[in-house]
Formats: sequence, C-alpha cells, structure tokens
Amino acid sequence: MNSIDDTIIALATPPGISALAVIRLSGKNAIEITQQVFKGKNLLQQPSHTVHLGGLGEKGRTIDEVMVAIFKEPHSFTKENSVEISCHGSPVIVKEIIKLLMAQGARLAKPGEFTQRAFFNGRFDLAQAEAVADLIHAENDNARQAALNQMRGGFSKEIQHLREELIHFASLIELELDFGEEDVEFAKREDLKKLIQQIQIYLQSLIQSFDQGNVIKNGVPTVIAGKPNAGKSTLLNALLNEEKAIVSDIPGTTRDVIEDEVVIGGVNFRFMDTAGLRETADVVESIGVERTRERMKNASLILYLFDLAQTSLEEIHGQEKELQSLGIPYMKIGNKIDQAKKEVIEQLPNDFILISAFAKTNLSQLKDKIVSFFQIKEIKQGDVVVTNMRHYQNLVQTNDALDRVLHGMDHAVTGDFLAMDIRQALHYLGEITGQITSDDLLANIFSKFCIGK
Amino acid sequence: MNSIDDTIIALATPPGISALAVIRLSGKNAIEITQQVFKGKNLLQQPSHTVHLGGLGEKGRTIDEVMVAIFKEPHSFTKENSVEISCHGSPVIVKEIIKLLMAQGARLAKPGEFTQRAFFNGRFDLAQAEAVADLIHAENDNARQAALNQMRGGFSKEIQHLREELIHFASLIELELDFGEEDVEFAKREDLKKLIQQIQIYLQSLIQSFDQGNVIKNGVPTVIAGKPNAGKSTLLNALLNEEKAIVSDIPGTTRDVIEDEVVIGGVNFRFMDTAGLRETADVVESIGVERTRERMKNASLILYLFDLAQTSLEEIHGQEKELQSLGIPYMKIGNKIDQAKKEVIEQLPNDFILISAFAKTNLSQLKDKIVSFFQIKEIKQGDVVVTNMRHYQNLVQTNDALDRVLHGMDHAVTGDFLAMDIRQALHYLGEITGQITSDDLLANIFSKFCIGK
Repeated sequence: MNSIDDTIIALATPPGISALAVIRLSGKNAIEITQQVFKGKNLLQQPSHTVHLGGLGEKGRTIDEVMVAIFKEPHSFTKENSVEISCHGSPVIVKEIIKLLMAQGARLAKPGEFTQRAFFNGRFDLAQAEAVADLIHAENDNARQAALNQMRGGFSKEIQHLREELIHFASLIELELDFGEEDVEFAKREDLKKLIQQIQIYLQSLIQSFDQGNVIKNGVPTVIAGKPNAGKSTLLNALLNEEKAIVSDIPGTTRDVIEDEVVIGGVNFRFMDTAGLRETADVVESIGVERTRERMKNASLILYLFDLAQTSLEEIHGQEKELQSLGIPYMKIGNKIDQAKKEVIEQLPNDFILISAFAKTNLSQLKDKIVSFFQIKEIKQGDVVVTNMRHYQNLVQTNDALDRVLHGMDHAVTGDFLAMDIRQALHYLGEITGQITSDDLLANIFSKFCIGK
Repeated sequence: MNSIDDTIIALATPPGISALAVIRLSGKNAIEITQQVFKGKNLLQQPSHTVHLGGLGEKGRTIDEVMVAIFKEPHSFTKENSVEISCHGSPVIVKEIIKLLMAQGARLAKPGEFTQRAFFNGRFDLAQAEAVADLIHAENDNARQAALNQMRGGFSKEIQHLREELIHFASLIELELDFGEEDVEFAKREDLKKLIQQIQIYLQSLIQSFDQGNVIKNGVPTVIAGKPNAGKSTLLNALLNEEKAIVSDIPGTTRDVIEDEVVIGGVNFRFMDTAGLRETADVVESIGVERTRERMKNASLILYLFDLAQTSLEEIHGQEKELQSLGIPYMKIGNKIDQAKKEVIEQLPNDFILISAFAKTNLSQLKDKIVSFFQIKEIKQGDVVVTNMRHYQNLVQTNDALDRVLHGMDHAVTGDFLAMDIRQALHYLGEITGQITSDDLLANIFSKFCIGK
C-alpha cells in the first residue's frame, strides 16, 4: 500500500550519459531525507525556491557534488515539500544517489505519481493532469500548444461552471421528488431547457474540435496508393525529401510498406508507400498488394496516384469507383503531367491535383491541399481543442444524456427520470475534470506517464 | 570566432521524452537574454541561487511553463552568469526554447564548452576538468569515486606545489647563466637533488597507480579460451548469470565471439567466450578459431579452461606452453572437477583454480582470484589514482626528464643543460594541470565532452 505520506523519488530526466541528471523527491519528508545525506548548508533552514551546492553521500563517502533545489509546500508542483537534485549525468551516480535516498526512507515513484499527487492536492484537475503527459509527448508545435493550453485550464473552468449549474437543477428536481404527490416544481423547466441548450452548444463546439485535435495529437496515417509504376515511391521520396524508397522503372519494385513521418502545417503525416495494386503471380509481391489493401482500409487519407502518361480516362474512372467503395477520404492525384497527353488532362475532372513527383512540380500545392483537406489551422495561445479520446468520448456521452433530458421534458416524463439522465450527464462531465474518479480510471491514466513525472 | 563574452546555450540532459529537460545558459548576458522571454518575476532583480516559475515565450505565445534557476557570477559552475531552465521533457519544447533563446542572442555551445569556461575562469585546473568527463562516463562505482576524487583536487595541488618549487630552482639556475663565466651557484645542487628525488617518489606512486586506474576506468578485456568442449560457454553464462551463449555437448558449438560485461570487485570485466582452439575442416568454425587467437592476443587477461574430465597431464602441460608463449597474463582453470579423475587433480600444480562451471562450484573463489590478480582495491574518498592515459604519459615523461637532470648533475653538466631538462619536466607537469596548454590540446580534451557540459 502506498501512502500519500510517503516521500517518492525518481529520475526525472531521460536515462543516459549527459551533462546533468535531475532526481526528484516529493513528500512530507523530502527535505529532511535529503538533509540526512547532504554535506553543505542545513537545507531545513533554507527558504523555498533556493539552490544549494554540496556533496551527497554518507559519512566518509561522497557520491557526487550536486546542486539541490528545495521547494516548500504548498509552493511546488505537487504542493508537497519537494527536492530536485542536479547531479552529474552518469547512470552510476544516479543509481547510487537513488539507492542512498531510498535507504533514508524515500521510495521509488510509480509512473505519473508526481502528477497524480499534484492532482490529488488540487494543483489542477484531471484533464489538466492529462495535458501534462500530452505536453511531454507532443510531436509537433501545434500539439505542444494544444496541450499547453489544456494544461493551463483549457475547457476545465467552463465545464466545471456548467456542471455546477446543472447540479443545481438536479438538486431541485430531486427535491421535488421528496415532495412526492404534491406536484411542486422547484426547477423551472424552461430555465433547465435553456441551460441544457447552452451547455450543448459548448459541448458541440468541443466535440467538433476533436476532428482537428485528434489529427494534431495523433497524426494522419496517409497511404500512397495506385497501380504499379504510378510513381508512388517517387512521391514518397519527394515528400520526405530523401531517398527512402527504392525507385525503379520496373512495376512491382515496392513490396514492403515503407513509411516515415513529416510535419506539414503543424501535423504529423505518416506517409506509407505501398505495393502497386495489381494481380500478380509473384508471391512476395502479392503479399505486398494484400498489405496495401489492409493499410488503405485503416488509413485516414489515401493519396491515390494515377499515371497520366499510361492511363486512359476509362481506366481512371474505373479505379476511382473502386476507391470510392472503400469509404476512406482520398485525394486524386494525376502524376507525370509532363508526359501526359493534352486531351487526357483537359478531360480530367477539376478535383484532380496534377503533379510530377519526379520533377517535383506542384508539390507545395499538393501539401497545401492535404493540410486544407483536414482544415488544420495553427493552434494559438488560448485556443481550446479537444485532443484526448477519453475527453471526446465523455463529451459525446454527456451530450447524449442531455439529449435524453430534453427529449424527456418534451414528452413530460416524470422528475425521477429527468434526474437520472441529468445525473448521468454530470457523471460523464465530472469524469473529464476528475470530480468523479475511480481507482481504475486513475490507474489507467497515470500508468501511461513517464516515471519521474 | 567564439568570444568568451558570448552567452552559450545547450541541452544539459539526455535527449528524449521524460518528465524534465534542463537547458543551460552561461555568459555575461545569460540572465538578460532569459529575462527577455520570461513571463514572471524580473529575473534581473532576483538573488543568485533562486528558482522562479514562469512562462517562456514571445509576446502572445508561450512555449512552456518552466522553472528558471539563476546563478550570478562568480557563484556558478562556469563562474559566469548562468541560467538553468527546467522545462517539460519534450524534444519539441526543447527545440523551440533553444531556438527562442538563440534569437535573443545566445549561441549553441560546443562540446565541453561550459567546463572549458569553468577551466578558463579558474574554477579548477585541467586535470580536474577532465575528471568531470570521467565522472559522467564512469561505468562503475570505483571509477566514479576515482573521478570524483580527481575532480575535487586529487593530485592537482601536490603537483602544482612541487612544480612551483621546481620553477624556483629553474629560475636560480637560469640566473646563474646570466652571470656567464663568473661560476656562481645560486641553486644549491644538493637541495635540487633532494627536491627531484622527492618529486620522483611522488611521481612514481602516481605512475604505479595507473595500473589500477586504467583497469578501473577502462575495464579488463578477458578472453575465455580453451579446447573445444572445455565448458567455456557454460563459464561465461555462469559469470554473467544468464544464458547468453548457446551451450551444447557438441564440440565447436560456439563460433562467434560472444561477450558481455560484469562488474566484479568494482571493475568492469568484458568477458569474451570464444570458439574452442582446434584444427577444423569447418570453414565457419575455423574463422572462429582464428578470431579466438586474435582476441587472445589483445586481451588483458586470459581465463584458460582445461577439461579435467578429458585431458591428460601431458596435454595440460602442452597447452600451457602454448599459452605462455603469448605473453598475456592468464589464469589456469580446471573445469569439471566433479568428473575429474582423482590422480589428475592430485598431480595438478597449485596455481590451478578448480571449478565446475556447470554446477557453479568455486565460482566466487574464481571471481576473488580474478580481482586479486589485478590487485584491485576499493577506491575510498581521497584516494589518488591516475586513470587518465594523458596524465600517465605526462607523468612518465616528467619522470624521465628528471632522471636526465639527476644524471646530468652526477656528470657535472653545465647549468644550461640542467635548466633545459628542468624546463622540459616543468612543461610536462604543467600540461597535466593546464598551466601550459595549447589550442590543440584543449580542443582535443574538450571535444570529447558531452554537449551541455
């Protein structure tokens, strides 16, 4: 059993050899524990937010010379007494220091335990705590900004405010129930309806932001598909600006799925070059074609390449029909425009993007189209975007419960049913910000954190 | 051209995703530069060794919420104004913060540039600066302690002291030269001789410590050799406490050299399991045997295994002769004592270590013998051990030059020749602690440091 009174310890920086490593302690006795092995000033007598040079070790044995920063409750990340020890960045030193401090009474922190304590001690709500992990794992600047905005408050305050108003109504309706048969109405139905509509407008704006938020946080798996020799590997290399895939004139050159990530317009696109779609007797190639179809089904976007130098309009229409049937968003790209017949180009529908992957013609237009396809805009300071699948699901469930409340009122259902749906909505809302939690939920969230955070 | 007035910046913690990353600045304007993009208290008005929470970014855009520690000259590692920024451990955030601060006038630090500045500004001498790198790269606790002792002063003070006395004599002798034909003797030859002998006693103790120091710092490449099926792979696995090498009854199972490191008695032993030594028609195995011989030649220690169950005393003597001819230190190990004939064991010379690798009999005795073979003792706080090849070479060269001085005095050479050899000794001594340096020497030393140190 882990008590909240424990003092926890962990390496907070990545493992490895480096100039510095930072070991972090938090807990009632964090400063006392450090003081027992610190050779320098008496840390217990120093003010918060100060840094002190000294040796660290037992009597007659110094492990390292370190800088110790102390933070006194509640003025720390966890709101507990905290210590950050900056030592030389050697794994041997880190191991010895942690061993030493554990011998003084600290215990190894579990993943996310520092942030969990910050949450328990009211530094921030659950949605903000989750944003701390998102911030650390942000893969591009847009994702970083979305996470930072969320960590700094994001939708938390607004959701808590709306939730309180809803609680007020729920209480009134439940009060009515106490009066049983008397047919009183403490909660004015008109006001409740207005409040719910107001909440739903806010919820829906958050729900809609997830389309973008998900793309920003998780990136876009994008398959480059098309018939053999349509120029898929050439396009991948051009998008990556390197010779990642082997390119040849021989149809069927690519068999494995070759992939890599590029940030375009603040979003990580994972481009996958695939085997060209054709019936083939080559066993390895046919496995490749099978994998291509698999990837296409799981993609968020298909860049479908047509070889304009080789393909007739009828073939183009045929391929597009097949493509449509997948139900995955796709963009039609006419490649090799420099070799295409004039009449083919003239008769192509408007929604074709015409490029030459080899000559790198129109590539920046292609990138612009990809970005605008997802309606990605730069995240600014203060923009609220839902990037977390858990938040998204709870927002949708809250909205559904509120739909049921509205529907119930329209059909004059009794107060007890209304109250049930309102309580359901409150539950889902409360789970987002962590007013309502369970051990499972918390364990699930914090176990995904780094140790030391 | 890099001016010492520049403010340098680097990530000081390992790259990667983690709870924290620390970015370090040093230079006259380090605090001003940070202040320009810090949203919090005015850092310029804060005392040294304090930590401050705030946003970091330009107007209208915050990159991250960070903790900024400030250190005012000369009370910092570099003795310059310094700043340590603790941000969330995301590579995206680190990149953006460094970009931002470079736009304010900081420039990227070169490897070791922080330590180089600390050296230039007199925080420590060159041998101590090198110990900083050794401390970071220490692979076991003994190496850590040796480096820490050196960083804290080690032989530096003593060498500087002896060097000053020697300079005194050199000056006197050079003064004599000014008087040309007058045959004065300002430097008493008897006193000079005493001083040199005293210096040499100290130098020799340092030189001798390198045997151990080198082993502690660089580890011991140890080849496990012997005839096929002598039990080499079984011994490797037993020493490593894992199933690293494939073991079978079939002679010739091991072909590649399989290796791994274990710390025994504070020293990293790199044990190498090798192909058994025999003539073989198998091409792959014969390449393996060739490699075994190669490794044996380059080893610092050979653990030679005799299969006591299969080998006659004559064969044992034959194999040992071959072994001796290599000129590499070796230990003779009789394996499979549980299956050995009594008369073989009784007639074995005393210097055989008898084990059963399979039954793990006598393994700890074997380990003790290995450790005592290198006369390794635990490094205690304050022990002075030379671990650095450069220091060792300079110590030897100093000693040689002093030998020449003594020899010269015995043969009554003229003062100008004495002075030359003394100056030579002073040069080599001064290079150790950095009183004498060249750009090449410094570049060579500091380029091996981490960036950020």
